[in-house]
Amino acid sequence: MSLLVVGSVGLDSVETPFDKIEDALGGSATYISLAASYFSAPVTLIGVVGSDFPKPYIEMLEDHNVDLEGMQIIEGEKTFRWGGKYHYDLNVRDTLFTELNAFENFNPVIPENFHKARYVCLGNIDPILQMKVLEQMTDPQFVVCDTMNLWINTMKDDLLKLLKKVTVLIINDSEARLLTNEPNLIKAAKMIRELGPEILIIKKGEHGALLFTNDTIFSAPAYPMEIIFDPTGAGDSFAGGFIGYLHKTRDLSPENIRRAVIYGSAMASFCVEKFSTKGLEDLSHLQIQDRFRDFKNLSSFDEPN
Amino acid sequence: MSLLVVGSVGLDSVETPFDKIEDALGGSATYISLAASYFSAPVTLIGVVGSDFPKPYIEMLEDHNVDLEGMQIIEGEKTFRWGGKYHYDLNVRDTLFTELNAFENFNPVIPENFHKARYVCLGNIDPILQMKVLEQMTDPQFVVCDTMNLWINTMKDDLLKLLKKVTVLIINDSEARLLTNEPNLIKAAKMIRELGPEILIIKKGEHGALLFTNDTIFSAPAYPMEIIFDPTGAGDSFAGGFIGYLHKTRDLSPENIRRAVIYGSAMASFCVEKFSTKGLEDLSHLQIQDRFRDFKNLSSFDEPN
Repeated sequence: MSLLVVGSVGLDSVETPFDKIEDALGGSATYISLAASYFSAPVTLIGVVGSDFPKPYIEMLEDHNVDLEGMQIIEGEKTFRWGGKYHYDLNVRDTLFTELNAFENFNPVIPENFHKARYVCLGNIDPILQMKVLEQMTDPQFVVCDTMNLWINTMKDDLLKLLKKVTVLIINDSEARLLTNEPNLIKAAKMIRELGPEILIIKKGEHGALLFTNDTIFSAPAYPMEIIFDPTGAGDSFAGGFIGYLHKTRDLSPENIRRAVIYGSAMASFCVEKFSTKGLEDLSHLQIQDRFRDFKNLSSFDEPN
Repeated sequence: MSLLVVGSVGLDSVETPFDKIEDALGGSATYISLAASYFSAPVTLIGVVGSDFPKPYIEMLEDHNVDLEGMQIIEGEKTFRWGGKYHYDLNVRDTLFTELNAFENFNPVIPENFHKARYVCLGNIDPILQMKVLEQMTDPQFVVCDTMNLWINTMKDDLLKLLKKVTVLIINDSEARLLTNEPNLIKAAKMIRELGPEILIIKKGEHGALLFTNDTIFSAPAYPMEIIFDPTGAGDSFAGGFIGYLHKTRDLSPENIRRAVIYGSAMASFCVEKFSTKGLEDLSHLQIQDRFRDFKNLSSFDEPN
């Protein structure tokens, strides 16, 4: 059964200290699907674009075995657009503009033949839409969910309802603190797991990620990078690598979930090496395995004799 | 040959959201020596106090095999005092007062019989004093050095001169950025290693530590703590555990230096569990080994089959 990915598909205009691009491929569902496609095929993308959505982007996604049967193309509408500018230290970004366009009235419809999908990744869209997706599913067994500060601030009740149905929540450290009003991440993680998600992943950017499962914590290192060309999509690529690997292996043991966190981290590191989705378009399995091994070398140590 | 530790010895008045204490034992040399004492004996502490320095503190240090032959007690002077207050998120601290007292004219004199020590830990004091120590040594082969933003801002030239003589520099992430004016830590680390230190350790508090050696990077996790009672001395305890373990094992292989970073992290985690030096006063070797294993469990993962 296919891996179902729901989220935004858009055109990004991004400026960093190194370069700038306009109307490049972006959106949470795009990054998640591409990253997952290296592990699991097919990946089914549920999203919406306008009739101006460039054909080469469709072809590139299809070349990666991303099934676009559930991507609505709204005639006469324009595609969702986002513009952002990253500052020198790359942790600070300004949103320059957001044009919802076709995304404004997005009503995710899951094609009949995917209602039975068991692995679902809910990219960062508002929690009511995320819930609508789950309500169409017969028996979603492994639901990975991303969210953001905007929904925590403006739609907290809907988010809390959704969290009860979520298996894995992936958020960043500031969002975890915001959601719980607790500065200590270990305490915040306990509180979030009590809201529903059995598994919680807190992304910490250049400091790696923390995985919280039943009574155990796993600390994944960050890949050391001298230059980050474009941080856009890093979190989505993480989610895609994570769920793609688990969907492929169908092994939800604690050890395998740790591996999935490393594959997620690896895909995020490839993503930020190039602008837009370029870093995820031409990877080999050997490159991904090498990067996995880099993470291992980065963090391994032995007990004394 | 003994491990030589130079730095401040003082009386700290600390307020945290949990409690407050007055005139408790503190100072960089104190924490370093105590942490190192669990690995290596004897540890020789070079420092200065006033005649008001409480006798129980001297006895406690001597009980831990810390040799105080080089600790000057200045008759009629008061001991160095520092007062600080930590805020709720514990990453923010205000210095309430600093009274240099006996420390003001500190002139570190290394007793004759320690001139040949090969392992030296220069706790955080001004770089001219740190250099004075090295000038008295016959052949210091492994010099670990800590510093702080104050010296980077006010005595940079002296610090740069010192760094040429240092084997391992241990600083925190904001200090690494300040020293190099480079926000990317991986680039900053390269720049710092070109200033002299063969080995660089960047401490990142709740995000662990990075070890930079020739062409390799090691990312050590942070011990997950729900409550940090008193962050004072964490960095010094790290340095003490690190050099204490290396002094004991006399093994400077890359694998053993990684282990030393974990022992340093372990001692820092014990330190912050109690106020002042209390967390370092009654540890067993079993507890330290268990904590080492906790770090291993926290960060280990296997390659896929």
